[in-house]
Amino acid sequence: RFACDAVDEGLLTIEEALLTIDASQVDSLLHPQLSRPITEAETVVRGVAASPGAARGAIAFSTEAAIAAAKDGIATILVRKRTEADDVAGFHSAVGILTSTGGKASHAALVARGMGKPCVCGASQLTVDSEARELRLPGGIVMREGDLLTIDGSSGAVTTTAIPLEEPQLGADFERVLEWADSLRRLGVRANADTPDDAARSVRLGAEGIGLCRTEHMFMSPERQKLVRAMILALDSDRRAQALDRLLPLQQGDFERILLEMGHRPVTVRLLDPPLHEFLRDPIEIEERIASASEAGNPALAADLGIELARTLELQEANPMLGTRGVRLSLLHPEILSMQVRALCRASLAVRPRVGTTPRVELMVPLVAFESELSLVSDSALAIAAEEGLAGSEAPLIGTMIELPRACVTADRIAERADFFSFGTNDLTQTALGFSRDDVEASILPLYLELGIVDRSPFESLDGEGVGELVRVAVERGRGAKPGLQLGVCGEHGGDPDSIAFFESLGLDYVSCSPFRVPTARIAAAHASLRGHPADQSEAGLPSPD
Amino acid sequence: RFACDAVDEGLLTIEEALLTIDASQVDSLLHPQLSRPITEAETVVRGVAASPGAARGAIAFSTEAAIAAAKDGIATILVRKRTEADDVAGFHSAVGILTSTGGKASHAALVARGMGKPCVCGASQLTVDSEARELRLPGGIVMREGDLLTIDGSSGAVTTTAIPLEEPQLGADFERVLEWADSLRRLGVRANADTPDDAARSVRLGAEGIGLCRTEHMFMSPERQKLVRAMILALDSDRRAQALDRLLPLQQGDFERILLEMGHRPVTVRLLDPPLHEFLRDPIEIEERIASASEAGNPALAADLGIELARTLELQEANPMLGTRGVRLSLLHPEILSMQVRALCRASLAVRPRVGTTPRVELMVPLVAFESELSLVSDSALAIAAEEGLAGSEAPLIGTMIELPRACVTADRIAERADFFSFGTNDLTQTALGFSRDDVEASILPLYLELGIVDRSPFESLDGEGVGELVRVAVERGRGAKPGLQLGVCGEHGGDPDSIAFFESLGLDYVSCSPFRVPTARIAAAHASLRGHPADQSEAGLPSPD
Repeated sequence: RFACDAVDEGLLTIEEALLTIDASQVDSLLHPQLSRPITEAETVVRGVAASPGAARGAIAFSTEAAIAAAKDGIATILVRKRTEADDVAGFHSAVGILTSTGGKASHAALVARGMGKPCVCGASQLTVDSEARELRLPGGIVMREGDLLTIDGSSGAVTTTAIPLEEPQLGADFERVLEWADSLRRLGVRANADTPDDAARSVRLGAEGIGLCRTEHMFMSPERQKLVRAMILALDSDRRAQALDRLLPLQQGDFERILLEMGHRPVTVRLLDPPLHEFLRDPIEIEERIASASEAGNPALAADLGIELARTLELQEANPMLGTRGVRLSLLHPEILSMQVRALCRASLAVRPRVGTTPRVELMVPLVAFESELSLVSDSALAIAAEEGLAGSEAPLIGTMIELPRACVTADRIAERADFFSFGTNDLTQTALGFSRDDVEASILPLYLELGIVDRSPFESLDGEGVGELVRVAVERGRGAKPGLQLGVCGEHGGDPDSIAFFESLGLDYVSCSPFRVPTARIAAAHASLRGHPADQSEAGLPSPD
Repeated sequence: RFACDAVDEGLLTIEEALLTIDASQVDSLLHPQLSRPITEAETVVRGVAASPGAARGAIAFSTEAAIAAAKDGIATILVRKRTEADDVAGFHSAVGILTSTGGKASHAALVARGMGKPCVCGASQLTVDSEARELRLPGGIVMREGDLLTIDGSSGAVTTTAIPLEEPQLGADFERVLEWADSLRRLGVRANADTPDDAARSVRLGAEGIGLCRTEHMFMSPERQKLVRAMILALDSDRRAQALDRLLPLQQGDFERILLEMGHRPVTVRLLDPPLHEFLRDPIEIEERIASASEAGNPALAADLGIELARTLELQEANPMLGTRGVRLSLLHPEILSMQVRALCRASLAVRPRVGTTPRVELMVPLVAFESELSLVSDSALAIAAEEGLAGSEAPLIGTMIELPRACVTADRIAERADFFSFGTNDLTQTALGFSRDDVEASILPLYLELGIVDRSPFESLDGEGVGELVRVAVERGRGAKPGLQLGVCGEHGGDPDSIAFFESLGLDYVSCSPFRVPTARIAAAHASLRGHPADQSEAGLPSPD
């Protein structure tokens, strides 16, 4: 590697060598690459380069097909119009993902980047007909399930040509560069990790802790979804408590494995965040089941499904992003909060002998807008932790995500009850700009890029003037009220080099990003340290706040 | 009236007399009242006092029933579980509205207050069975369509007892008090008015202009909805242009009548704001029509409806509040912008001879987050106005709503291209707090009031610490960049006395509220002038901004 050679030959200092490296390219070094680029002639269609690396496999039009093929040892490319939560199992089984709609912040792109799977999104010239199990390409070409495709998530190109893949060459030079970066950076780097596998990968890639562990991702596997559904649909608190009692040991087991992987490193666990109806079945699917049950002469089942349908419709919201989610769930359903805190405390105690000390757990309350939301949840979480035997210096730290504009401007008050802040810049971007990510990515952002209203997606690189200004206000007011307040970032921006430079300029303590972006963040954080410091914001690459 | 007598007898000065009046009670003086309160024993059910005044009428379970009864001269109370856009025609026909769900900021409450109709919302002990046309009350009582009810929108009580109503007694004393208020207040008072009737009522109640004319409300009548649907569903711009050509004279006619009513007073016209799918039919309704068409052996109609369904589903959004609406519509569909600007300019020119001068039109661009959104729309609107013959000093003023947190923190940049700002505090509350009004009113706000997290609905009275702080920042930055910038408020808070005191403390130029709240606002504005001024915020009744 050039940088290492230059240092060895005395041509460059470590600092100079590090600055020759483009942090945004580091990501792609960690994934299998094509041995040569796909030529224009070979390209059958082009989409958005949504998650780097290349993959070749047989087309699978459904999660089921991808899982079945994986069992037979067949590599697949999961091909969908768009992906949703229940496709995630298919992501695990596939070697790459291809969609005909959506952009860099679509569900497919986010999940693929989180898993480090190559992904091409929004290849809009494709017609994905999942029912006919046909993929129609421009020029009347039709491909069927099992046909082979190669996708390059670094360029967005898709081809039927078989181009050999090369495994990523990390080796000693790369490790050496990362060590230089670690010795020079001020910002800590953590990972967003929801599973023991993610946690192990995070440590391997150099994360100093987990900055965001999304507990709802532990509710996603099919068997657990059933329990979660039962809990949500329960009409009385007794039945809800029963369902929660069965979820508790499962959640505890997940926490134990994650805490063991992380050892002495801090682990930030976020309380249940998404609107509950995300865990429920599609009303249309329930209606179909009701029809089948009636036809099959099973009126009891049909009646049960009728109740499920009514409750599902009741929980639907006009704007779920701004509805019953985050801390609101903990206040509305204290029994869920209680289950989660107990599971976490019991996991801490269970792994303590093996870790050698009580794990450093940071309990994070999402979507706080009012300081009293945090104080109410904090009081009850601490009481539960004490019941479980974790009090005083052993009690979990309790902090909050700062992801609403109101939280930014009232950060001084919120800081009084918070052990830490973590900026949720994804949701802060959605609320500050009035941009529903699911909606504007496809309809508005392409036009805005074309008109020059934005020069990059604000979901990829932080909008410094708007969202960044709100973050700056929150930092100023939060630290004004509590000087030593720990400040991190756990939005997607935590892995974006330009955004990292901005966070350095504000003096945050750490960034947290998906495990595969940890090396990028380590280098970008070193660049940010080398190029500027809080007093010198003009180097940050983003307009200086205020 | 006591205040007038006291002044006449020399006991109080005008200022002192004015301060004895409770501004929040003024509203109820303008509506029919019960001659005596409903007793506890008479109360069959109690809901939220959502729009003041009392009404007695026959139960109507649908808009159709209310309209039919009105034709026969029968007064009705429209009784619904909740109301939606297509119930608005029923509001006009009914004398009062009663719902079993929703609170003070529900659709029913907002529309009722806007129209000055008494309304009781969220009477949750009622079961409204619109299909069986039955209203089930506690204690097993069942009422049917046509049965008589009395509702008191000032107390929330509902009774079957016939209590005589009294017409509001405004008279000379009240007018005198309002004149005192006008002589003492600094803040201007405008009205939110969408129709010629609203405009006439606004002037009658003392509004100095229109602060918000929502052009989409002109698209709501059944015949026009058809044209609007054709415009939205058009697959090519030719067909869209055809539909718009037919809408233009209708919109122009509305503008003409409104401008004539307002004469020399300023009229702020907001460009089309809501997501387009609000104008489309419910997908389930379309599916039913497809089934009927197929059964009736009309495959051509079924195919057309199939296209409508596909396009309707395509336009649906996960979070419409944060989706394709506001200025985004004008940028995505410049032909809609063009139609609206032409209609407005032609209306101005048409009424000019009768008004004696070119009407003072202020064109307002909603949901701006980026200064270049405003400059792009402003450039094209001014070019179109010039084509229509309105240039230079005759061109409409062009300003923007400030209703997104990003707009508040970048107000200095936006001010450079704006002739005025109008704070849209409804949407600013939704985005700053992450509160979807449609969702949190029923599920979260009651709990938050109970837990003491909020002491009033932030949709009723401005959240001073959060939303108010963002408004303060925008005022400071906007006026910093453009000292004479005209600043108004057109959210619901423009008619709330405590919020008016806060707006006075920030030195805004005017508030705008629904016509029936104009007298309240005139008195509250005088109180705010008497009690404090921008330099003395501690009197404002809301925590002083930072």
